[in-house]
Amino acid sequence: MTMRIDGRAADELRPFRMIPNYTKYAEGSVLVEAGDTRVLCTASFEDRVPYWLRGTGQGWITAEYGMLPRATSTRNQREASRGKQGGRTMEIQRLIGRSLRAVADVSKLADYTVWVDCDVIQADGGTRTASITGGFVALALALNKMAAEKGWEKLPLCDFVAGVSVGLLDNTPVLDLCYEEDAAAVVDMNVVMTGQGRFVEIQGTGEGGPFTQSEMIDMLDLAIKGAQQLIQLQKEVLGEGITSKIGGDIPARNRPGIPE
Amino acid sequence: MTMRIDGRAADELRPFRMIPNYTKYAEGSVLVEAGDTRVLCTASFEDRVPYWLRGTGQGWITAEYGMLPRATSTRNQREASRGKQGGRTMEIQRLIGRSLRAVADVSKLADYTVWVDCDVIQADGGTRTASITGGFVALALALNKMAAEKGWEKLPLCDFVAGVSVGLLDNTPVLDLCYEEDAAAVVDMNVVMTGQGRFVEIQGTGEGGPFTQSEMIDMLDLAIKGAQQLIQLQKEVLGEGITSKIGGDIPARNRPGIPE
Amino acid sequence: MTMRIDGRAADELRPFRMIPNYTKYAEGSVLVEAGDTRVLCTASFEDRVPYWLRGTGQGWITAEYGMLPRATSTRNQREASRGKQGGRTMEIQRLIGRSLRAVADVSKLADYTVWVDCDVIQADGGTRTASITGGFVALALALNKMAAEKGWEKLPLCDFVAGVSVGLLDNTPVLDLCYEEDAAAVVDMNVVMTGQGRFVEIQGTGEGGPFTQSEMIDMLDLAIKGAQQLIQLQKEVLGEGITSKIGGDIPARNRPGIPE
Amino acid sequence: MTMRIDGRAADELRPFRMIPNYTKYAEGSVLVEAGDTRVLCTASFEDRVPYWLRGTGQGWITAEYGMLPRATSTRNQREASRGKQGGRTMEIQRLIGRSLRAVADVSKLADYTVWVDCDVIQADGGTRTASITGGFVALALALNKMAAEKGWEKLPLCDFVAGVSVGLLDNTPVLDLCYEEDAAAVVDMNVVMTGQGRFVEIQGTGEGGPFTQSEMIDMLDLAIKGAQQLIQLQKEVLGEGITSKIGGDIPARNRPGIPE
Amino acid sequence: MTMRIDGRAADELRPFRMIPNYTKYAEGSVLVEAGDTRVLCTASFEDRVPYWLRGTGQGWITAEYGMLPRATSTRNQREASRGKQGGRTMEIQRLIGRSLRAVADVSKLADYTVWVDCDVIQADGGTRTASITGGFVALALALNKMAAEKGWEKLPLCDFVAGVSVGLLDNTPVLDLCYEEDAAAVVDMNVVMTGQGRFVEIQGTGEGGPFTQSEMIDMLDLAIKGAQQLIQLQKEVLGEGITSKIGGDIPARNRPGIPE
Amino acid sequence: MTMRIDGRAADELRPFRMIPNYTKYAEGSVLVEAGDTRVLCTASFEDRVPYWLRGTGQGWITAEYGMLPRATSTRNQREASRGKQGGRTMEIQRLIGRSLRAVADVSKLADYTVWVDCDVIQADGGTRTASITGGFVALALALNKMAAEKGWEKLPLCDFVAGVSVGLLDNTPVLDLCYEEDAAAVVDMNVVMTGQGRFVEIQGTGEGGPFTQSEMIDMLDLAIKGAQQLIQLQKEVLGEGITSKIGGDIPARNRPGIPE
Repeated sequence: MTMRIDGRAADELRPFRMIPNYTKYAEGSVLVEAGDTRVLCTASFEDRVPYWLRGTGQGWITAEYGMLPRATSTRNQREASRGKQGGRTMEIQRLIGRSLRAVADVSKLADYTVWVDCDVIQADGGTRTASITGGFVALALALNKMAAEKGWEKLPLCDFVAGVSVGLLDNTPVLDLCYEEDAAAVVDMNVVMTGQGRFVEIQGTGEGGPFTQSEMIDMLDLAIKGAQQLIQLQKEVLGEGITSKIGGDIPARNRPGIPE
Repeated sequence: MTMRIDGRAADELRPFRMIPNYTKYAEGSVLVEAGDTRVLCTASFEDRVPYWLRGTGQGWITAEYGMLPRATSTRNQREASRGKQGGRTMEIQRLIGRSLRAVADVSKLADYTVWVDCDVIQADGGTRTASITGGFVALALALNKMAAEKGWEKLPLCDFVAGVSVGLLDNTPVLDLCYEEDAAAVVDMNVVMTGQGRFVEIQGTGEGGPFTQSEMIDMLDLAIKGAQQLIQLQKEVLGEGITSKIGGDIPARNRPGIPE
Repeated sequence: MTMRIDGRAADELRPFRMIPNYTKYAEGSVLVEAGDTRVLCTASFEDRVPYWLRGTGQGWITAEYGMLPRATSTRNQREASRGKQGGRTMEIQRLIGRSLRAVADVSKLADYTVWVDCDVIQADGGTRTASITGGFVALALALNKMAAEKGWEKLPLCDFVAGVSVGLLDNTPVLDLCYEEDAAAVVDMNVVMTGQGRFVEIQGTGEGGPFTQSEMIDMLDLAIKGAQQLIQLQKEVLGEGITSKIGGDIPARNRPGIPE
Repeated sequence: MTMRIDGRAADELRPFRMIPNYTKYAEGSVLVEAGDTRVLCTASFEDRVPYWLRGTGQGWITAEYGMLPRATSTRNQREASRGKQGGRTMEIQRLIGRSLRAVADVSKLADYTVWVDCDVIQADGGTRTASITGGFVALALALNKMAAEKGWEKLPLCDFVAGVSVGLLDNTPVLDLCYEEDAAAVVDMNVVMTGQGRFVEIQGTGEGGPFTQSEMIDMLDLAIKGAQQLIQLQKEVLGEGITSKIGGDIPARNRPGIPE
Repeated sequence: MTMRIDGRAADELRPFRMIPNYTKYAEGSVLVEAGDTRVLCTASFEDRVPYWLRGTGQGWITAEYGMLPRATSTRNQREASRGKQGGRTMEIQRLIGRSLRAVADVSKLADYTVWVDCDVIQADGGTRTASITGGFVALALALNKMAAEKGWEKLPLCDFVAGVSVGLLDNTPVLDLCYEEDAAAVVDMNVVMTGQGRFVEIQGTGEGGPFTQSEMIDMLDLAIKGAQQLIQLQKEVLGEGITSKIGGDIPARNRPGIPE
Repeated sequence: MTMRIDGRAADELRPFRMIPNYTKYAEGSVLVEAGDTRVLCTASFEDRVPYWLRGTGQGWITAEYGMLPRATSTRNQREASRGKQGGRTMEIQRLIGRSLRAVADVSKLADYTVWVDCDVIQADGGTRTASITGGFVALALALNKMAAEKGWEKLPLCDFVAGVSVGLLDNTPVLDLCYEEDAAAVVDMNVVMTGQGRFVEIQGTGEGGPFTQSEMIDMLDLAIKGAQQLIQLQKEVLGEGITSKIGGDIPARNRPGIPE
């Protein structure tokens, strides 16, 4: 077995910690730490919906992603100063939004939008999957407040969802790559899974070289293992009180033939 | 077996046609028709490289994607008029670029950027995969001209690459979804493959409901079958003269730790 | 008489072809080919009007113009990517819009905007005049559908309209300049005319050298001749059924003192 | 003869005044007053040229146009605040630039760009033609300074140039329309002429109704008359010293096949 | 006492002139001349309020600031052309807006926004304070028209307000710096005061070197003296008729916890 | 004496904490906590200077400021998503930059720009002054690294600098306002001071009502007291090793007549 840069086994996650209620204003918030990666996730309610949902009685969940300029080893220009969000940012925030909506029943959120903001304080690989894993916790904390106000017994969440990265490094599948590993990996795959072990998103990229179906299956097996651990952590952070209110039938299809 | 909207079998591609050299100015061009989807792909040379490659002696391949305002059933606002490219556009053009670079040896393109433009004239599902399949043909036609000028025996392409969509429709895996099927599908997966049957990109999304590993493998099997047919078509369009100049070792890793 | 680059007589149009109903979604569409220039024109309905027409009961017709990046001999940066439409684009789309409105009765289009999109697939001179000539056909096809739905006997079009370019090349007035001629011409004039032989727009530019009134009259005579041929072609493409529904009094002034 | 709103004859210009050297910094400046229209024109040197002229040894002349927010009867949003120049602005500044270059020999301005800024303080019709007429004066004043420094005997200007508007109002051709007349006119034509009576630009628009060739010729006759008076005024403002340095052969074609 | 560049005493204002009703369209306008600095201030009504005031029954006063490109010794790029207002512009227009609101009772302006536009024709130092001093006059002229229409006895202005600059030049406090002095000053302070001698804004910057409390008090004493003279001038320009309608209790706090 | 919302005395700072080296990549970083306000300040080197300093041999220090969307009680739209930085952001980041440059000798930073990024994680009043106080610490930490590499004995900093807010609340001057106090204050003043007790910036705003010179002096006395405590904290955080390298003559004027 390949010894990894930081001494981990191939199938070992980095230390993963979530500090819930990290900020005082947001309806839900959590600081996620995955190794040296740190992402602040907040969930905020807004009492209106995108124009293409007006009058449908349905709510919406959307995500935005950002990186502080010096979250990385060299400073990146601030997107607010450049005047637009880059393609990478857009791609990631669309992924986070789809992942969270896959386990949510937005028909219950009538006329509300939940904004899940994922801001990277420090980036050492895996920021998008940490954002999904933490974003779910922030979302659940926020929906739990809404549930208390509305008198709901269950949250409008049918399952947990977490993201994890896997890759092919020197022909070996490895779990949860740090930045240095990610830069060296031939294949890079982000996997989003539910508590019941189903896939929500799979994005595998072999820009460094194409990969076979069997390599892919090996990587997915690692991903499944990692995701289960992360979902276990989510349950611990949310506690039994909130965990017990998550689950139920897969919601009716959220995507009403709309653009995003 | 489910009867599909247009009478196709589950594992059947729509009629797929490529008209090479469709425009007179571009170094390479092809009009792709996949059912009612029509995409014009052109490849253009520019004699400079992105700033982060200057002085490295390496070239670059990048892609841009656009849709005419009335390519779809209702008119979309022109991105040039809105003042920015949307997230979907950015996501797609990044995918096309990575896919083409995965089979190209950009170290041979010293100080040149190849721009692959994919413009959708009419959209009926599968525009991003048609763009990859056609973009490769435009790229090969353009590189063939460069090869003639430079006296190269081989093109700097180690393999063919094609994209195909698959999905899960009423619990049945289907190949090459048209728009109406795509809107109804629970899972939507875009797969990019090489001529040797390896994966370059897999992007599966279950926003309509999560999916299992076995469903994914069934969909990938369909994708493999479809991609082989598309690559066969690419060979016919390019002809034996060009086809014989494609192949060789997988190029040294193209991605020099850079952003895109 | 000067022999022209492509062997045409000074007063001869390039081969001009229009393929109606070129796309399946637009209410009206036509692919225009003028020599090697190819422009796709579509007309789309939107069920609202610009803010300065709200509540007036009047509709509107507006045009947008774009060029694919490699429509020209060297690639132009995509306007969507640059983040704004250039001055040339704006100038042209304003010209197309005014030309079409000059023969239309927008008071009949209550609460509808017709968007006429002219997208240049390949540019070899005369793209703006081809856009006007084709844009009129797309508009007429679309209004004919609206007329069928509304039970109108006549279209809200009082006349045909077509655009043609003329110029002064080596002191000789020539009709319908291709790009190479346009680049060499001293004077460049775009003329928009109605079926009744009246002018709607005249834009003559002598950046290469000023011109006399008699030179201008000679050029206009060529333009009149060319426009008549184009309008004849429009009638053939639209057919007797639609042609017979076009005509009538000049509509009441469309421009209600508004900006555009 | 129709009595006009302000009592003028159909062929009569509004009171037209030019105050040269209106600002203390610009190399050339003039405040133009045409009736209630007031435009400040300045000419500034910049010691570099657009990228497509680098290394050619040629200089350039370009124009920019702006309106103060309350130059008009109702306030317009500031373009700097909207984040872009509108289509009307772009169209006008392109017209001004072409008009001035038509009488200038930019090959003499090696490596310099002359920026002619035309800012409308108050708008009562005819701002674009006043900008051309005044812009020429500002340009001549600035070039006269450059000539003094360089020891040139002649300015790089082969002729004078002025702009004037004409229109068709109640079937009568009228000269130099104020805003109220312009809003009521069926045809609106801007004409740019040289001191030798040649046309540089003709832009006629019949959005309110198409016009005949004979109506056009009548309008042009008025324009010729008005332009001659304006050029006489330019000569008085510039004085014999500068006037005597303007003239000579028409410069070699300025437009080197470039975009603008 | 230090002799100043232009021979003024340290406590002497430059010649200051205001020409009221300078433009014919604006509800209020004034051209301000402070030495060679010239600013055109206009006040315009718009019959709606910012979204965060809708339904509150309150009105608003806001300011915008701009400089013509050649208002300065070298040409600045037009902000409309750059596509955004710079930080300096934003900072200044926010200052002007706050200064004017400090003496106004916006609760009286129900559902109206007053736009105060300050456009710099020529800049020789002190443009922001001239904008405040002139902006107040334009505002008062406009509100006087509104008062006439509404039948108000008093204007919704509790006091006069004027701005003046002071600085530390060679260790000497000086009043009303011209550009050349400003560039040489170690400390630069802008002071906005009411007719009753109270401060509305103090912005002191010691980028050239920090300053002591006693230096600051000396500068403020100069500022008080200068502001009194300017307010006296405002009264003369507005005349007894309008001056007598200004004054009263300090309005209830205008800032309803909102952003600007 | 007025009892304050959180029980503090009028002249009492909130608990103020600085965690140096908070992130692993930046040359200098500190997390500042002032009550519930939390700002992450980082200092980054870039080996080039703004264009207007090229070739001067001088370096530069600049600052950028941002707020996470949910740093406040209601979510603010992300500036990167809106496509531009707002006026408040620009104003604040210009203030931070000027404040830091006032104590720095940029002539020593040849060809380097130091970017000081201040990102607000949670905002409860006083974010701009916390950014200055923390920004100085991040800057000193970064310059200490540069000093080690370059073998400098002293840092190019002539003094410490800290920012503090004061205000007038119910006619009482108070120090270090939290958000709730700030929203209720009539006067709001930000004061930036050096270790030697001199002022670098004073920005006092009386939008809620003008203030007298004696009120201002009372507020400044509080500010002086608060700033001294903050500078003492800076010294403790930086330690004797770095503190002893700060000081010396006031640098030659940094501002070479340039814009910012």
